[in-house]
Amino acid sequence: MGDKKTKGGFTLPGESGYEKLTLDLAERWGADVIRDSDGTVLSDEILSSGYGIYSTICIIRGHNEWAKANPDKLQQTFLMTAPKTAEDGYLTFHLLDDFFDQQFVVNDSPDSMKYWQVYDRTLGKELSKSFWTYEKEAGNVTLTNVIPWHRYTVSFMAYRIWEEINMYNHTTNNWTSEHLMPIDPVHPATQEYMVKWLTDWCETHPATTVVRFTSMFYNFVWIWGSNSRNKNLFTDWASYDFTVSPKMLDLFAEKNGYKLTAEDFINKGALHVTHMPPTKTQRDYMDFVNSFVVDFGRKLVDIVHSYGKKAYVFYDDSWVGVEPYSPRFKDFNFDGLIKCVFSGYEVRLCGGADIETHEIRLHPYLFPVGLGGLPTFAPGGDPTRDAKEYWNNTRRALLRTKIDRIGLGGYLHLVEKYPDFVDYIAEISDEFREIRDLHQAGAPLTIGGKIAVLHSWGKLRSWTLSGHFHETYMNDLIHVNEALSGLPFDVDFISFDDLHTINLDDYKVIINAGVEGSAWSGGDNWQNPIIEEALTKWVYNGGIFLGINEPSAISGYDTAFRMAHVLGVDKNIPSRICHGKWSYELTNVDGLIPEGANVPQKCKVHLTDGKAEVLLEKDGSPVFTVNHFGKGKGIYLSSFEKSTVNNRLLMNILLFSQNIELNADYITDNTYTECAFYPASKKLVVINNTDQAQSTTINTEFGQITVDDIAPFGTVIKQL
Amino acid sequence: MGDKKTKGGFTLPGESGYEKLTLDLAERWGADVIRDSDGTVLSDEILSSGYGIYSTICIIRGHNEWAKANPDKLQQTFLMTAPKTAEDGYLTFHLLDDFFDQQFVVNDSPDSMKYWQVYDRTLGKELSKSFWTYEKEAGNVTLTNVIPWHRYTVSFMAYRIWEEINMYNHTTNNWTSEHLMPIDPVHPATQEYMVKWLTDWCETHPATTVVRFTSMFYNFVWIWGSNSRNKNLFTDWASYDFTVSPKMLDLFAEKNGYKLTAEDFINKGALHVTHMPPTKTQRDYMDFVNSFVVDFGRKLVDIVHSYGKKAYVFYDDSWVGVEPYSPRFKDFNFDGLIKCVFSGYEVRLCGGADIETHEIRLHPYLFPVGLGGLPTFAPGGDPTRDAKEYWNNTRRALLRTKIDRIGLGGYLHLVEKYPDFVDYIAEISDEFREIRDLHQAGAPLTIGGKIAVLHSWGKLRSWTLSGHFHETYMNDLIHVNEALSGLPFDVDFISFDDLHTINLDDYKVIINAGVEGSAWSGGDNWQNPIIEEALTKWVYNGGIFLGINEPSAISGYDTAFRMAHVLGVDKNIPSRICHGKWSYELTNVDGLIPEGANVPQKCKVHLTDGKAEVLLEKDGSPVFTVNHFGKGKGIYLSSFEKSTVNNRLLMNILLFSQNIELNADYITDNTYTECAFYPASKKLVVINNTDQAQSTTINTEFGQITVDDIAPFGTVIKQL
Repeated sequence: MGDKKTKGGFTLPGESGYEKLTLDLAERWGADVIRDSDGTVLSDEILSSGYGIYSTICIIRGHNEWAKANPDKLQQTFLMTAPKTAEDGYLTFHLLDDFFDQQFVVNDSPDSMKYWQVYDRTLGKELSKSFWTYEKEAGNVTLTNVIPWHRYTVSFMAYRIWEEINMYNHTTNNWTSEHLMPIDPVHPATQEYMVKWLTDWCETHPATTVVRFTSMFYNFVWIWGSNSRNKNLFTDWASYDFTVSPKMLDLFAEKNGYKLTAEDFINKGALHVTHMPPTKTQRDYMDFVNSFVVDFGRKLVDIVHSYGKKAYVFYDDSWVGVEPYSPRFKDFNFDGLIKCVFSGYEVRLCGGADIETHEIRLHPYLFPVGLGGLPTFAPGGDPTRDAKEYWNNTRRALLRTKIDRIGLGGYLHLVEKYPDFVDYIAEISDEFREIRDLHQAGAPLTIGGKIAVLHSWGKLRSWTLSGHFHETYMNDLIHVNEALSGLPFDVDFISFDDLHTINLDDYKVIINAGVEGSAWSGGDNWQNPIIEEALTKWVYNGGIFLGINEPSAISGYDTAFRMAHVLGVDKNIPSRICHGKWSYELTNVDGLIPEGANVPQKCKVHLTDGKAEVLLEKDGSPVFTVNHFGKGKGIYLSSFEKSTVNNRLLMNILLFSQNIELNADYITDNTYTECAFYPASKKLVVINNTDQAQSTTINTEFGQITVDDIAPFGTVIKQL
Repeated sequence: MGDKKTKGGFTLPGESGYEKLTLDLAERWGADVIRDSDGTVLSDEILSSGYGIYSTICIIRGHNEWAKANPDKLQQTFLMTAPKTAEDGYLTFHLLDDFFDQQFVVNDSPDSMKYWQVYDRTLGKELSKSFWTYEKEAGNVTLTNVIPWHRYTVSFMAYRIWEEINMYNHTTNNWTSEHLMPIDPVHPATQEYMVKWLTDWCETHPATTVVRFTSMFYNFVWIWGSNSRNKNLFTDWASYDFTVSPKMLDLFAEKNGYKLTAEDFINKGALHVTHMPPTKTQRDYMDFVNSFVVDFGRKLVDIVHSYGKKAYVFYDDSWVGVEPYSPRFKDFNFDGLIKCVFSGYEVRLCGGADIETHEIRLHPYLFPVGLGGLPTFAPGGDPTRDAKEYWNNTRRALLRTKIDRIGLGGYLHLVEKYPDFVDYIAEISDEFREIRDLHQAGAPLTIGGKIAVLHSWGKLRSWTLSGHFHETYMNDLIHVNEALSGLPFDVDFISFDDLHTINLDDYKVIINAGVEGSAWSGGDNWQNPIIEEALTKWVYNGGIFLGINEPSAISGYDTAFRMAHVLGVDKNIPSRICHGKWSYELTNVDGLIPEGANVPQKCKVHLTDGKAEVLLEKDGSPVFTVNHFGKGKGIYLSSFEKSTVNNRLLMNILLFSQNIELNADYITDNTYTECAFYPASKKLVVINNTDQAQSTTINTEFGQITVDDIAPFGTVIKQL
């Protein structure tokens, strides 16, 4: 990229005491906005410097005085004790034995206790309430009349007395400050308090141009345990268990006409993992909470707007119920969505939301130590190298979706000792602005037909599964999403319910990727024969069904994969031990599998009728097959792992399956590079995804373009 | 072993034209009986030599003239076409398209066709018989009124026109002889024919002292396909599908009061794999067929006895319905059971049957080429080496169960060029007779309490799963059975039904080993809470539950393993992705895990409550754990693979779990050796399981015994 020195679209974390540095770097990086960070306050000199000012607020914490005066309005959750085996006719549970006692206290109010349940887990049945008693002083539940050698659990409600993000930062950094308590806006009194507090805040922060909400009200579910050997009992970034309270449940019953029970949340102790297909009650409840969050959230946004400020939402932490892909998201009337990004899929998640301003928070944060505990701005760290790698992860997605702003977070003074970091941020800020301008002129070219990713959540979980990549890496789909985030395809996320209403012919490829029973493979959704019927017809007429790992897997049918007849492969299950397997010769398709690509074997399959072509195998089992079915194809991959080379494999599969040449226009001929073409501005952006210089040649409608010696992680923009 | 030159208990395969060799080797190997083999006839010189004479008969084949005159009395089976997807409102199936046309012809008689079924596999429902027609000339079934994009199958009945063992030998050895056809004794006319044929045979074979039946009437299921790329469509050594016929089904309905359908056998195309838990109808049908086989078998045995001959049954090939572990087995009134053995578990299977004479057929057979196609008595072969390895596999089981006779099969003249083979057989014949005599004097010592292997079949599938080791190696249990076959423990095989009736306190250890849903793990048997309850109580009171791979696994409960609370570990399933895992330190128990032992990871588990001790792990997941539960223990192994060292690991686990010292009396201190002690004769047998010389020391009640320099694969017998 040239030495452009453009300006705007950049949010700088200011720091009091470092006013000169703040203003110098704002100039150097082309910032138009200065922000505070959690725990920092901007000085008047910065506030009055003429820059836009972001201020961060977390509406549900930092109100300990009010919280202590209103302990019944703290946020809550259901908890289930670990199961105990009855050795006799009675059993006693100390309810909080398994849990971190600084996070929870039992809510033993009558309106809570009406939801408590004791279960005989051996029978899978609730124990009558007449067979157990609660001793308030001891915090014990005692069961009488139990069946010896059966296992029992107690599900109860607990207040959360330590806001989890504060709890995490506090314990990680050995803070000694007071524990912040999360207050629950489900109560009218809390709402009244919050409205007043926010109004006061707006009054007293005239310099603020943008109020950044972190995020709304309810944290993702994060249950800590009492034992240091098992500190994180449960972590799910997208489930709704931390929104629960007797009040919320009563409101739900009033609205939906039926009552939920503790077991609707506890779910045999599994809770509701986003990686599993949602149940009907779970979806009803999520919808109800989303509606509540949007309704009250809108009231807060209106207050902000009434002061002439903009309202942005930071989509992390207390994000449950925000749902940027819910049709209600527009109703918040937020002006911007800010997403902290490690990966390309998070860029797409942000860019795809229906909102005016899309902003991403880049990594590394300006902290001495990064996630995982390795040094960043500290001896042994190399923040420039980190920044290049993060940029490399996210840039390919930035080429595909319009992001309006970037920004950093943390303590600005830490960059002083790292001048090459300052230079690099200046470089990628210009690069970002140039890419943003290309999007503004017109969208990048996509190749081939539309692609749908089919799973249980559909659009609501577009691009993401639940949380960060490193928490979800065991799911093939996050690898697929990450690969797709930078590929030149038009991608939708659709649910099984959508299959009944949408026109399947709008899609050329449908991807279904995951293990049996998961939300991503689809679980019981495959019980419905209409799904098999519709997809079979669609493939027969020319569609491409790309199945990964255990696509369409469900037990109880003649095949383990519902789409086995389309894929031409099926899973080796125990009832097939005695069945013969088709032998095969490997089929070669020139250029389809880039050198270094690999498809690890996660699921062992066999050919159903011998007709599928085997392109890769492992230990005598196919791991990559192509089956012609009518005018369409069933393609199977035993797994998918994102990597520069495997991303190219996926792209090649998506091209090849649509009968598009692998050297069609606007595709680099070097696996380690990618490109994007913006027809409106006739600009071609070529990126090098490696730490080595690369060259590549690209066919275009304007002739063949060769770009030589692209710097490591470098970007080249060509006018065609 | 000394140079004993004992005699008896040896069955020699005689060969016409080699009368001197036959009699010389009979003398050399201590034979008391000379047998014919399939395709060989003994000369008068041999028949009159004073030796006992075995003659082999296979009652259901070799009657082609009668078979051709009675084509409606050939044996049958149900077959299901491969599924076809309807692209329109109709579908046509050529019934035999998928099948080997020299094995099957369609039985389209009215009494057969009443059992035919067409299934919509997309819906899992039968298509009304009014929607399909059969065109006899073409052998086609045509479906009308089908739902487009649904998948359909046709289940029909076919005659088997080539007896499968003849088919296998014929095609493998390129024979040109007439195909032998299997006739079905379910018809009174066939029975009448067989009775007359056997009577005539006895009349014309006065020299025969023992009639060896090979075996009874019905072959294991072996369905061949039409395509050379998938020749063996289905092979199950223990399932009953080849016993089926309209007549058998009608008799079944008459006796049991309900009718079976084709789908009761076809089972969604899976057929009935012995590795899967049997269904109620399957067990009813097996019981019915077993009763029929025993009833008519007894008539044939009575004929043999009426001629003063003995009747032995060779347990292989047409063995379905014989069931040596059925309570009816005694009712055959057989005098002997002969089992061809490759493995120790087959020796135990033979030795444990309730019958007078137990005989094993040793390997290698006297054939130029062995199973798998490698040379034996041919250039490149080393039959002595092979014999040593087979003897090594089976000898440890011979130490544990009384076998009365051994024997060889094949063409005797082939040994002429292998004098060391002749010497080795002489040596192990003496060794066998010495071991047999020890058993006759009194049973070997067992150590500790009784061990039960718990699976869906219980006693009926004692020691074996289904067929040979190499066909079932993917099941952990066959490895366990093989290890146990030579260990000093008293082992029973029990079913889930048995748990309701037996006294569990008779057992000290219960082993449950297999993958979820399999017969060996137990599948739906674990639905019954009584099972969990009974086993929990039993472990709490001191029992040891040893679970391997996916023990007690079933979905729908709060744990993936029903016995997770006892094992202290549970399987990592998708709904547990978001749950934290207990960290652990490895626990060491001196000497428990022999050097070189390995426990491959088949199932990934986590600790349930952090209390189980982890003895081995792989990639951060436990693969071997011990959990104290009440006075008992739950022990988990991620898998078990038999080997000399791993067999010792299993023995150590079984000793350690019972609080028996690993250097207790009558245990070798060298993993590569094993020993057995016979209290009645005070003899200690020490065997070397390796091809290297070994020494070992053994604690005994008579002091410490050291045996130095045991020859490779050698046996030492010590008088204490």
